[in-house]
Amino acid sequence: MLPCARAWRRGSRLLQVPCTEKKNLINDRKTSPSRTLSTEKEPEKKVIFSGIQPTGIPHLGNYLGALRQWVKLQDQSDKSTRLIYSLVDLHAITIRQDPAHLRQWKKESLAMLLAIGLDPTRSTIFYQSDVPAHSELMWILSCQASTGYLGRMTQWKDKTSNEKEGNERLKLGLFSYPVLQAADVLIHQTTHVPVGHDQAQHLEFAREVAQGFNHLYGVDTFAVPETIISPAKRVMSLTDPQAKMSKSHPNPKSRILLTDSEETIKAKLKAAVTDSIDGIAYDPPGRPGVSNLLDIIYHAEGHADTGEDGSGQAALAKELDGASLRVVKERAATAVNDVVRPIRERFAELIEQQSYLDEAAAAGAFKAQISAAETMQKVRRAIGFA
Amino acid sequence: MLPCARAWRRGSRLLQVPCTEKKNLINDRKTSPSRTLSTEKEPEKKVIFSGIQPTGIPHLGNYLGALRQWVKLQDQSDKSTRLIYSLVDLHAITIRQDPAHLRQWKKESLAMLLAIGLDPTRSTIFYQSDVPAHSELMWILSCQASTGYLGRMTQWKDKTSNEKEGNERLKLGLFSYPVLQAADVLIHQTTHVPVGHDQAQHLEFAREVAQGFNHLYGVDTFAVPETIISPAKRVMSLTDPQAKMSKSHPNPKSRILLTDSEETIKAKLKAAVTDSIDGIAYDPPGRPGVSNLLDIIYHAEGHADTGEDGSGQAALAKELDGASLRVVKERAATAVNDVVRPIRERFAELIEQQSYLDEAAAAGAFKAQISAAETMQKVRRAIGFA
Repeated sequence: MLPCARAWRRGSRLLQVPCTEKKNLINDRKTSPSRTLSTEKEPEKKVIFSGIQPTGIPHLGNYLGALRQWVKLQDQSDKSTRLIYSLVDLHAITIRQDPAHLRQWKKESLAMLLAIGLDPTRSTIFYQSDVPAHSELMWILSCQASTGYLGRMTQWKDKTSNEKEGNERLKLGLFSYPVLQAADVLIHQTTHVPVGHDQAQHLEFAREVAQGFNHLYGVDTFAVPETIISPAKRVMSLTDPQAKMSKSHPNPKSRILLTDSEETIKAKLKAAVTDSIDGIAYDPPGRPGVSNLLDIIYHAEGHADTGEDGSGQAALAKELDGASLRVVKERAATAVNDVVRPIRERFAELIEQQSYLDEAAAAGAFKAQISAAETMQKVRRAIGFA
Repeated sequence: MLPCARAWRRGSRLLQVPCTEKKNLINDRKTSPSRTLSTEKEPEKKVIFSGIQPTGIPHLGNYLGALRQWVKLQDQSDKSTRLIYSLVDLHAITIRQDPAHLRQWKKESLAMLLAIGLDPTRSTIFYQSDVPAHSELMWILSCQASTGYLGRMTQWKDKTSNEKEGNERLKLGLFSYPVLQAADVLIHQTTHVPVGHDQAQHLEFAREVAQGFNHLYGVDTFAVPETIISPAKRVMSLTDPQAKMSKSHPNPKSRILLTDSEETIKAKLKAAVTDSIDGIAYDPPGRPGVSNLLDIIYHAEGHADTGEDGSGQAALAKELDGASLRVVKERAATAVNDVVRPIRERFAELIEQQSYLDEAAAAGAFKAQISAAETMQKVRRAIGFA
């Protein structure tokens, strides 16, 4: 599954809608920090799209940072809103993947999206590679995207600067994937894309591609998606609390997976790196380990939409002052296990139900194909293919 | 239709098989200059693929240089050989096209392929954009193609050096189209690709992509295509005989279209630029205009597979020595009209038969989709998508 360092998302900062109300997460324009559309007419129906790479079992950071919000969006959006969640396997292969792992991860990813509470009869959940129109539109848009613009993308620049021998050996897919991301979004007439700050540039690119196409062909072929930028809700590594919790960290004790048993959760939190300063305080720069535990408790105990300013965590620290770190860690373990338990249990059931998973994937692919075909028909007419 | 300066072909040098025998154009390995396959096992059946851009009515240079050979390959290949000819509209859009023109050109291109004698029940003739798997495979292969390799492609280097402001504004599609070409070829398990010298580099790239993929995944997913390089058979501009006859030349009198009337052909040849030197001689560098007329007569009178060394044209010059340029031009007009007339007439009939053209396109798309789906199934299994 996974919020992962490439393509669709880097780390766990995705889809964190900074709305303090429990309802109406995206339908109330006033509470949304998203940009105001200027020349484009207001779409009648909302379409929310997000993607996640099927590259492993999600961890706690992925869930608290992103996946929990997917479910909330599903459960709280207006009925007219379409929700489209894609397991973006085409993005996963921008770096080399072991085929057997990828095959297994795809299955686990789908099972996990269902386990966290996404409902395939409400949301369209599909494997990206089951809808060839994503690749088709990617090619068409790549005939409009300038190489200069792509070369200035931050993530490409990061990659080329990391390469000791320059960008000679870097693959084309790593250079061009923002165009595939744009296609992912535009093919479904998406109106809202929740992203983390690190992906905002790519969504801005998608907006420009859409506007450029609409302008060039004098038709409203694409909806111009709004970017929902949300405050970061980072969960940090348990073994290195100054780094984000990450799937790719070599030490598996650095992260809690959504499939971890209660014992494993307890053990990992018990071994979490803290410090030897007296007392409990929320001070991320000064006391990253303890602050990460407070963040985990705060968010795991249900504060999904607040906590950005740290006041809730500070209050929690005050409440816990005088307690030992052992007590704090036990409270974290309880809170985390309460979050993970139902997911873990549903996942364990679902992963055994191959035919149900196949059916869900087929239904998702079918719905996504229809959605994509409508746009492709408009695109083909606009450019003169049909 | 059109052999054109970008993507699949540049100019008219395509598919000129240097075989002097009328039969067995590609099935006899001994007479072919194609490279010997080394590690790959010999495919049991031949698959020939070529593509042409639907960007206007073909001219005489396109026909004598390429299209005539397509028909010959169709008519003379072993029955087990599959022939696949694509109207590569996805390549046509690597430069901006007017949608109305492109729509019309697509139709004309298909009608022209049928008018020259391609049989849609024998050859698979299809619009590239009707088979999304070409784009799908393009994306997958782009995750293996290095940007460095692509940047060293001659045609990209030509483009960047022509741009006064560097390659900043050049579109991604212009950079990445060799990967789409590779996908075009590999998706159909192509064994033989007839190309001009200027496309040899791109086919070599396709070979390397195929070999790299097969090696990486330990399976023979792709046939590794052989390149059939053939001697150039250039027809030069009538108004500027040191340049190739070209669709993009601003002066329409520079080229004879396959739809030109007899009167137009006569008028264009009558006005052809020659020189004021006495006598008739075959001397392309010294007397380009006259030599071009001799080439046209020689090839139009049926010498499709010879003429590379110029001896036939020299003999023709000797035969015509003493004749006036007017007589030479009249002979050229007669020869050209004899070639063009049946094509022109069939084209005029076919272009009115919209439903027949639609049916031919649908049948071609269906066959090509099946062919592509077989490969995509192998690809998906190999990389772990399925």
